[in-house]
Amino acid sequence: MYEQVKIILINTTHPGNIGATARSLKNMGFSDLCLVAPKHFPSDEAIARASGAEDVLKRAVVTDTLEEAIGDCHWVMGLSARERRLSLPMLTPRTASSLITEKLQSAPTGKVALLFGQEQSGLSNEALMKCHYQINIPANPVYASLNVAQAVQIISYELRMAILEKQEASNNNGAIDDTLANLLATAAEMECFYTHLSETLIQIQFLDPKRPGFLMMHLRRLYSKQTLTKVELNILHGILTAMKNSV
Amino acid sequence: MYEQVKIILINTTHPGNIGATARSLKNMGFSDLCLVAPKHFPSDEAIARASGAEDVLKRAVVTDTLEEAIGDCHWVMGLSARERRLSLPMLTPRTASSLITEKLQSAPTGKVALLFGQEQSGLSNEALMKCHYQINIPANPVYASLNVAQAVQIISYELRMAILEKQEASNNNGAIDDTLANLLATAAEMECFYTHLSETLIQIQFLDPKRPGFLMMHLRRLYSKQTLTKVELNILHGILTAMKNSV
Repeated sequence: MYEQVKIILINTTHPGNIGATARSLKNMGFSDLCLVAPKHFPSDEAIARASGAEDVLKRAVVTDTLEEAIGDCHWVMGLSARERRLSLPMLTPRTASSLITEKLQSAPTGKVALLFGQEQSGLSNEALMKCHYQINIPANPVYASLNVAQAVQIISYELRMAILEKQEASNNNGAIDDTLANLLATAAEMECFYTHLSETLIQIQFLDPKRPGFLMMHLRRLYSKQTLTKVELNILHGILTAMKNSV
Repeated sequence: MYEQVKIILINTTHPGNIGATARSLKNMGFSDLCLVAPKHFPSDEAIARASGAEDVLKRAVVTDTLEEAIGDCHWVMGLSARERRLSLPMLTPRTASSLITEKLQSAPTGKVALLFGQEQSGLSNEALMKCHYQINIPANPVYASLNVAQAVQIISYELRMAILEKQEASNNNGAIDDTLANLLATAAEMECFYTHLSETLIQIQFLDPKRPGFLMMHLRRLYSKQTLTKVELNILHGILTAMKNSV
């Protein structure tokens, strides 16, 4: 589904943000970047910030208008924190991602465009009117303006999580990992350890053999917070044996 | 819960990343930033990239060591994509956030530290051994290395989402246990225990003082599966002391 997602940056002024966006996209498995009338592009600063994602920059399509950029897309969503007079359905990144993956899965040649506005002014009303949905990142209300590459990071991350979830759900008939269980200590092995532990603690006179209850209860609770591995249990047995031998 | 979260950047080389991190944190409602031995700080580039979040930079605490940074924290989680020989429980940002908010809600004076390593090399094994959990962003496997500020953005966003969800769910649902955090051992107290433990293991000739690494790593992992209580730690110290006395 990754190739069905097109990220569109509109009128970006800082080329560093374009580079950082390219890197974020590639990190999340996306590669379709479109730049509508960027102020500086191509740019060395963009390449520097892309840091290994130059291929995304090289493949990036530059257009003069937003219309050209979204021309081949079936769904258009725009990121904006501001509520408008004529507002669109507002989605969080998570609900938007779930909606997008549903749509893309049901239409394997369909395409979604995600719009990100200019750094200072955000998405214009005109651009927002071309969207089917508005996405709003639920940020700190007293400081809600995210850097554009950070916003792209959040949206592309949420989309990746939604795609992975969908993929996992659809190959649900997978094999169960049965090697993990073999590495973990069994209850019987733990009992054996507790016996070894209490014997040793009696020997070093830390535990009163007449009243072992309370202390051993604490120790059982401590070691059973999570299942120990067999390796860990062997180390603990080793310590107890070394302890006995040195008394 | 926001003030219970401390973000720790270790040995950051690019001050721009520190600034971008400050902005991301403030966007998501967080403000507790700690810098362990940054290469350049304070820095004009950091202020420029912080863009309105200079207050977070000004409040940032700089320390020489990671130990100082995590000293007052009850849970420590580190971000790393790499699987280690001796790996910690691996969490996604989402499961980690849900776990963190659960812990913080049950212990309103408890504190969690989130560690982010140096840009090139990531989190060191040594730093990871101080963590209870490892967080792994499920990135594109062929290009998995995120910029540090982008990684902070994802984690802080997920945490904000989890906090908002929790707050929504628990509308005055029962009393909160204010004392739990006081009962738990801090990272500094755990370090003190590990020192006592290794000294004792050397004394009973279980640990080779020339090569303590691997075994101590196993033991750290074992005892950090979940935060120990102060009472449990006292019992363990007591055992070690009894052990020493009986040698």
